[in-house]
Amino acid sequence: MTQTAPIVGIVMGSDSDWPFMQEAAKALEEFDVPYEADVVSAHRMPHEMIDYGTRAAERGLKVVIAGAGGAAHLPGMLASVTPLPVIGVPVPLKYLDGMDSLLSIVQMPAGVPVATVAVGAARNAGLLAVRMLAAHDDALRARMEEFQADLKKQAQAKGERLRR
Amino acid sequence: MTQTAPIVGIVMGSDSDWPFMQEAAKALEEFDVPYEADVVSAHRMPHEMIDYGTRAAERGLKVVIAGAGGAAHLPGMLASVTPLPVIGVPVPLKYLDGMDSLLSIVQMPAGVPVATVAVGAARNAGLLAVRMLAAHDDALRARMEEFQADLKKQAQAKGERLRR
Amino acid sequence: MTQTAPIVGIVMGSDSDWPFMQEAAKALEEFDVPYEADVVSAHRMPHEMIDYGTRAAERGLKVVIAGAGGAAHLPGMLASVTPLPVIGVPVPLKYLDGMDSLLSIVQMPAGVPVATVAVGAARNAGLLAVRMLAAHDDALRARMEEFQADLKKQAQAKGERLRR
Amino acid sequence: MTQTAPIVGIVMGSDSDWPFMQEAAKALEEFDVPYEADVVSAHRMPHEMIDYGTRAAERGLKVVIAGAGGAAHLPGMLASVTPLPVIGVPVPLKYLDGMDSLLSIVQMPAGVPVATVAVGAARNAGLLAVRMLAAHDDALRARMEEFQADLKKQAQAKGERLRR
Amino acid sequence: MTQTAPIVGIVMGSDSDWPFMQEAAKALEEFDVPYEADVVSAHRMPHEMIDYGTRAAERGLKVVIAGAGGAAHLPGMLASVTPLPVIGVPVPLKYLDGMDSLLSIVQMPAGVPVATVAVGAARNAGLLAVRMLAAHDDALRARMEEFQADLKKQAQAKGERLRR
Amino acid sequence: MTQTAPIVGIVMGSDSDWPFMQEAAKALEEFDVPYEADVVSAHRMPHEMIDYGTRAAERGLKVVIAGAGGAAHLPGMLASVTPLPVIGVPVPLKYLDGMDSLLSIVQMPAGVPVATVAVGAARNAGLLAVRMLAAHDDALRARMEEFQADLKKQAQAKGERLRR
Amino acid sequence: MTQTAPIVGIVMGSDSDWPFMQEAAKALEEFDVPYEADVVSAHRMPHEMIDYGTRAAERGLKVVIAGAGGAAHLPGMLASVTPLPVIGVPVPLKYLDGMDSLLSIVQMPAGVPVATVAVGAARNAGLLAVRMLAAHDDALRARMEEFQADLKKQAQAKGERLRR
Amino acid sequence: MTQTAPIVGIVMGSDSDWPFMQEAAKALEEFDVPYEADVVSAHRMPHEMIDYGTRAAERGLKVVIAGAGGAAHLPGMLASVTPLPVIGVPVPLKYLDGMDSLLSIVQMPAGVPVATVAVGAARNAGLLAVRMLAAHDDALRARMEEFQADLKKQAQAKGERLRR
Repeated sequence: MTQTAPIVGIVMGSDSDWPFMQEAAKALEEFDVPYEADVVSAHRMPHEMIDYGTRAAERGLKVVIAGAGGAAHLPGMLASVTPLPVIGVPVPLKYLDGMDSLLSIVQMPAGVPVATVAVGAARNAGLLAVRMLAAHDDALRARMEEFQADLKKQAQAKGERLRR
Repeated sequence: MTQTAPIVGIVMGSDSDWPFMQEAAKALEEFDVPYEADVVSAHRMPHEMIDYGTRAAERGLKVVIAGAGGAAHLPGMLASVTPLPVIGVPVPLKYLDGMDSLLSIVQMPAGVPVATVAVGAARNAGLLAVRMLAAHDDALRARMEEFQADLKKQAQAKGERLRR
Repeated sequence: MTQTAPIVGIVMGSDSDWPFMQEAAKALEEFDVPYEADVVSAHRMPHEMIDYGTRAAERGLKVVIAGAGGAAHLPGMLASVTPLPVIGVPVPLKYLDGMDSLLSIVQMPAGVPVATVAVGAARNAGLLAVRMLAAHDDALRARMEEFQADLKKQAQAKGERLRR
Repeated sequence: MTQTAPIVGIVMGSDSDWPFMQEAAKALEEFDVPYEADVVSAHRMPHEMIDYGTRAAERGLKVVIAGAGGAAHLPGMLASVTPLPVIGVPVPLKYLDGMDSLLSIVQMPAGVPVATVAVGAARNAGLLAVRMLAAHDDALRARMEEFQADLKKQAQAKGERLRR
Repeated sequence: MTQTAPIVGIVMGSDSDWPFMQEAAKALEEFDVPYEADVVSAHRMPHEMIDYGTRAAERGLKVVIAGAGGAAHLPGMLASVTPLPVIGVPVPLKYLDGMDSLLSIVQMPAGVPVATVAVGAARNAGLLAVRMLAAHDDALRARMEEFQADLKKQAQAKGERLRR
Repeated sequence: MTQTAPIVGIVMGSDSDWPFMQEAAKALEEFDVPYEADVVSAHRMPHEMIDYGTRAAERGLKVVIAGAGGAAHLPGMLASVTPLPVIGVPVPLKYLDGMDSLLSIVQMPAGVPVATVAVGAARNAGLLAVRMLAAHDDALRARMEEFQADLKKQAQAKGERLRR
Repeated sequence: MTQTAPIVGIVMGSDSDWPFMQEAAKALEEFDVPYEADVVSAHRMPHEMIDYGTRAAERGLKVVIAGAGGAAHLPGMLASVTPLPVIGVPVPLKYLDGMDSLLSIVQMPAGVPVATVAVGAARNAGLLAVRMLAAHDDALRARMEEFQADLKKQAQAKGERLRR
Repeated sequence: MTQTAPIVGIVMGSDSDWPFMQEAAKALEEFDVPYEADVVSAHRMPHEMIDYGTRAAERGLKVVIAGAGGAAHLPGMLASVTPLPVIGVPVPLKYLDGMDSLLSIVQMPAGVPVATVAVGAARNAGLLAVRMLAAHDDALRARMEEFQADLKKQAQAKGERLRR
């Protein structure tokens, strides 16, 4: 049962980001990593956001994944109030192809890092969280290695089909 | 006396930004606008930052000027906790020429605007604050018009020297 | 009646920008701020544009909102002839995703600031104008605080739906 | 005598641009094209700028060269009030390497073109003005062809030195 | 009859650019400026391209308009073999939004200018050619002034409709 | 003794990167996290690089920090052969301000994430590694919280000095 | 028969790139250059990728063409383990228009070059491979010259159609 | 003797590029590949440039290396008149960090590829030429493999020094 207490928190500024951020959740599910998902807007509910970050570690979370777009402040602000690693997902908006989101998340000042993944790469954020956990969990690490072996097999199969 | 209670707050993430942000202060001084200057780091003192923004209006401030560089979250975060207009100054860092700072400040989501000025344009931030105040203060507006007339005279004098 | 004299001017280079700039107008309407909307093209009617800016303050406007795209000169040119705060909205054109519009508006020289909002952020331009007015109008400020509280409630409701 | 009445106008926002824009003047002098140089700031003396553009053709100018940096509005605004060809020189500022200047000048809307040259290319602006004039002046065209032949000879001499 | 000998040459790398470059031709037609249009590819028919540029002036052309995309070499190469002013139109390709085309055209080295217009601005290229011709043709200049007055009237009418 | 077996590997393409990447090492030292540093060039010693990544986990490493510039392949290639989290530091080269390094590191395909920090942010890479470890080590987490409290105190002290 | 042993290897990270990379194959077929195509993912099958590059020359290949997108490491990694020339094709992904792919491929460090072609230019990669082979094969060079003559004829025919 | 007839041509727009392009020559010398160096400006001596490219193959060259900056047309124009592989070196100018040079060289249209190397990477251009030659010259290929082995040894030695 305690197993199912979430150890990864997935947060985003609006539920409209969910179809997008869901990819992070799916990756965690593939590895049976319990997570929670929530709307925690840096700009619309700053006090709750600060509170979420401040309490994340004591609530048992090991990693926080935060998706945001444009002047994307959520990942960095959470990183400033939690000692946990925060993974930032640059969500692309209608204009500028996510370049604004990327720079707003990755260019953090000395002292407060955010682990940034590619523009729109919610799935990779989930997989990065798994890696962080797996470094301290041999069984999970074995599953990650299996996952990587699977990626290889799929790529090899694609090669075989192409060569035929 | 009440005249000297600050009505503009100038904040920045570190005192190392002061030589830079001082230009905003100088512009306010030219117009005898009382201001305060403070270090309020979004990433190093988030609770104080939230508090500063939350109390800005009740403390009598009419405008907040915030300078920040890189993943520049200070202006946007302050804007999320104050109803006052927040002016953001993109401070250029060692790399990327302030493009990261600019996008992190200007690309705010719907609902929470930041009035952004040019990369490194602390002086213009001060002048923009004066304009905001002058719109409701005829004497100050007259001084701004005078200031603009002076800019013109200086430009004209330059033209005369060049034509000679 | 005097209440309905416009205190915010919304201007744009062509009526084809209206569907876009209308978002600024809607934001002002939500706060019952009287405004006017006009086509004032910097490049097609420069004399009228100069005239509009020059007379804006004496006509009772407190803020000017100007939307423009590409080599977007309207906000900056208006700022050069009025002592009022000018809010610039970078309108994205077919190519370059509004980056040209943004830089043409925000990178103003020392002495003549433009309060720039995000690419395409007409609604935020309206809200920024409300903030500027609200700094000198306690009732309006209270409404802005209410508006911000509403944003929070909506975001919280979204979080609840997501957590379910 | 009438020969010496200027037929090219070189304008810039400040006399601090003169060392830079002087390269345009030098190019014109090499071709004995009479010119005038003036400070005409779009943002600091907008009425004079409009007036300069409006009267340029009747005063006998055939081409206007305008240098400007950042949110560079001078070339485009002049083009809006004169039927003459306007050549824009993007002056690079301290940050962004002139990309803001370039986009602010070249991305003009349909109806009002500016003939834009490279970032910092004041000399080429002068040579472009000569070409425009030379298209209607056989003697000047012959000199431009000579100039081009000289460029070739110099390049060939460089090649010889290198091959030795 | 001599009237109809073309004085503007519109060239492009492929006839697939014609629907696009046709806007330049239309602008010239509005001003009854005789022109020719041709496919002159810098990369696929370099000798013909060099020949076209070399003979342009003696054939009676006064201006050359060249549209090109990507590594766009046509305008600059033509400028290197003709003393005439060359107007470059950056044609946007499938990727990069014409930024490659723009830089490839505008960033010419000292000695060989290209008069560059906005990304995709074929119509403005035509209008710029008209301005170059009009500087030496009073009747044409009067038509350009009329054209500009028309632009103003249309903009004013749009303003009226909006204000209603 | 086992305490001193390295649990973080810091790798770079050349020892000339060491003065730069040393900041990551210093951050780890502040938290008494044992690390190793090595030159593992993706492009000059690809087999050793693959070998380093493949054996990283079994050798007891929990996190790998990799710095690289330009077409920066080291972080991503290591991530492809280890199940451990890999932190990528974009090293800025002489041109392009590290934008090439950043994109080469952060834009990883689905399946193989790299935790990217800011351009040149070697110190933050070290701190991010500490956070990853601290999520599973209460004592280390307490030290990170202390570190964050210190950052705050320093920022507050700066504010006091500025306010004086 | 030996004639049909492949001398160009076309590789890509996934068979989903085949419709795209097929253009390289088609160009080779037009010149009767025998080639092979395979899926060799740098990130999903790094050992096989290293192996592919290491054995490419001994297997008789003369050129390797590698297509990749985003943090595109395949071309550069292959170049690090083969002495053969490697041609890199930047494949554009959903965001950033291939700029990340281009920089990840072209910005290789001293010692390990990749011959990079335009974003999405798989066909040109094939033609570049033909040129490399043709430099040592007079018959193939004659065919390339014929191909170039054909390009010219097609362009000329387009010109004729346009002039009509 | 015939051995010393140049088989690689290194060309550039001005002898001022020689200190820069010399790195390509040095790389060729390390492999005893005979080369020639010349100034062949696309914009200042277009006819000679066309001639150089047209005759390159018949004169015995196997590869052409062309360096150019800004609106860099030399590599692409040479590629249009020779069937040989052309290697383009984007030379960075004072502004824009070579991004203009890179795009002007790499973004060639279908049919006329240029093998582009990194901004400022003249040495890599030389090494790429060696690879192209080595694919058809077993002795040279062995030397390239040796060179690569040396790169590895140097990198390993650096690692040893760092680990000590």
